[in-house]
Amino acid sequence: MSEKASPRSRTERELTDLEAVFAALAHPSRRHILLVMRFRRGEMTAGEIADRFACSWPTTSRHLRILEAAELVRVERRGRERVYHLDARRLGVATKWLRAFSPKA
Amino acid sequence: MSEKASPRSRTERELTDLEAVFAALAHPSRRHILLVMRFRRGEMTAGEIADRFACSWPTTSRHLRILEAAELVRVERRGRERVYHLDARRLGVATKWLRAFSPKA
Repeated sequence: MSEKASPRSRTERELTDLEAVFAALAHPSRRHILLVMRFRRGEMTAGEIADRFACSWPTTSRHLRILEAAELVRVERRGRERVYHLDARRLGVATKWLRAFSPKA
Repeated sequence: MSEKASPRSRTERELTDLEAVFAALAHPSRRHILLVMRFRRGEMTAGEIADRFACSWPTTSRHLRILEAAELVRVERRGRERVYHLDARRLGVATKWLRAFSPKA
């Protein structure tokens, strides 16, 4: 019980990450936000995101919170601005899962 | 309007496919079913699936219908049996989407 970082707990962590990432990717608006951020070099202010997306700010903001909880984006306060950063490495958990199905696996 | 298979309609088809596949992958039970099928050479009878999964058959059956709608599995009737086949190629739409975020993209 007192052992540090057992293989089991690492597996559990990976499952939780996988869950958060796949759930975040399930909504087209969230995939859209990630793609737009990707093509803007992984960084957008809250204002730029609000301008870019037609839906209301509360809806976009809710999607951003889900992306943040999945650690796919992180927020930085820069003066009065909120700047969103894409963390594309986190998508690796989904890519890794899908690799189990590749013909070479 | 009478043109066949315009690039736009192909793009729309791809978006619909992407939607169905990512929505299907959002639930851990459905990812679990796909993995188990993968490691049983892509084929399981309804009975084998029901035996393998702890949750009730109505729940499993609902997940299988979602996987079928996403064309990730297809069902074949073999006498009185229903045999489920994995179509792992369909996961390619998700892999392709994720590739846009790879460092080399």
